[in-house]
Amino acid sequence: MTNFDAGLLADRTPLPSGLDSRLLRHFTFLIEVDKLKTVLRASPLAAADRRENDAEHSWHLALMVLVLAEHADEPIDVGHTIKLVVVHDLVEIYAGDTPIYDTEAGHDQQDREEAAADRLFGLLPDDSGRELRALWDEFEARSTPEARFAKAVDRLQPLLLNWMAKGGTWRTPGVTADDVRSRKAVIGEASATLWEAARHLIDEGERRGWASSRDR
Amino acid sequence: MTNFDAGLLADRTPLPSGLDSRLLRHFTFLIEVDKLKTVLRASPLAAADRRENDAEHSWHLALMVLVLAEHADEPIDVGHTIKLVVVHDLVEIYAGDTPIYDTEAGHDQQDREEAAADRLFGLLPDDSGRELRALWDEFEARSTPEARFAKAVDRLQPLLLNWMAKGGTWRTPGVTADDVRSRKAVIGEASATLWEAARHLIDEGERRGWASSRDR
Ligand SMILES: [Ca+2]
Repeated sequence: MTNFDAGLLADRTPLPSGLDSRLLRHFTFLIEVDKLKTVLRASPLAAADRRENDAEHSWHLALMVLVLAEHADEPIDVGHTIKLVVVHDLVEIYAGDTPIYDTEAGHDQQDREEAAADRLFGLLPDDSGRELRALWDEFEARSTPEARFAKAVDRLQPLLLNWMAKGGTWRTPGVTADDVRSRKAVIGEASATLWEAARHLIDEGERRGWASSRDR
Repeated sequence: MTNFDAGLLADRTPLPSGLDSRLLRHFTFLIEVDKLKTVLRASPLAAADRRENDAEHSWHLALMVLVLAEHADEPIDVGHTIKLVVVHDLVEIYAGDTPIYDTEAGHDQQDREEAAADRLFGLLPDDSGRELRALWDEFEARSTPEARFAKAVDRLQPLLLNWMAKGGTWRTPGVTADDVRSRKAVIGEASATLWEAARHLIDEGERRGWASSRDR
């Protein structure tokens, strides 16, 4: 299910006439993306008793890329990797967040997100839209060292939040520590060091009963 | 007033022993910065009826840099500029947000923020901490085209949110449209196009009575 019906945010307080037409499209897009701040994820914050939203998550990934880049197995362009994480969840403005352990919603996720990308990036002038779309496609395809590292950090960040919450979404009914390991294994495609640390957190979480050792 | 007393977030659920000592410091820092998601700004969101937090704001700036870079008067390294906006508000974790029209709180802002930077970046291994501190110093000094553009976008983003709110913080008692113009003029140091657009929004806001034409 995609969420196209609410209309554009910019239509609620139309921008004044007299703006350059190219800049008008840039501003319309940059106002529309404010909606990412309202897309809630499953992960609990460490600093407050509420769930994280996609904008906060995307910022956190950007900072993690900056700090953790030295642990990448292949050399990466840090600035480019940060661009990937800044745009990686934008399609969820219309397609919604698909929790990693929700196999049901996962079925039509790709179709929903492609439609959302067409709509959202279509707000921009063609060349600007193509640039952002290419970043999102690169992230999804994991075809470059930068995209693989961006994806690794996207999987590592909620793991830190779940650790802080003594389980968090690891406690989703039916989810086992082995499920967590298999969803997080993609970290190992980008960084042996980070994957070793992630496994250590999951192993210790399982030992403490924060993640289940078998199907419940 | 700085806010050092709450203790480190990572101490609430200590990371397990056995992590590499350098990675442990990276993770401790990356957990601590979750607090940025709880630092509220004066600006209202366009997409929901609440105020924006610093993490959402920082993400929004990163995307604005990516989309608006073509309007910079001098060539900028987009990836580097995004790094600047990702770290630019981190010190507010301890120093708090200082609203742009709050001249009282502005007095000791620099001292508070320097102390906050020492504390926060000191959580990192020395070289990592120096790298982030240098990005924050560069942003504050506006000594490079990238820092000037980052600052311009930092001033432009709440202007778009205020426009959407038909005034927002422009309606702060005692604040006039001329005050808004003088606080936003720094946009013109980075982009004639964006400064012209900003002035157009402020002029039109004043015309509509969303910003006051004289001292109230
Ligand atoms: Ca600030």
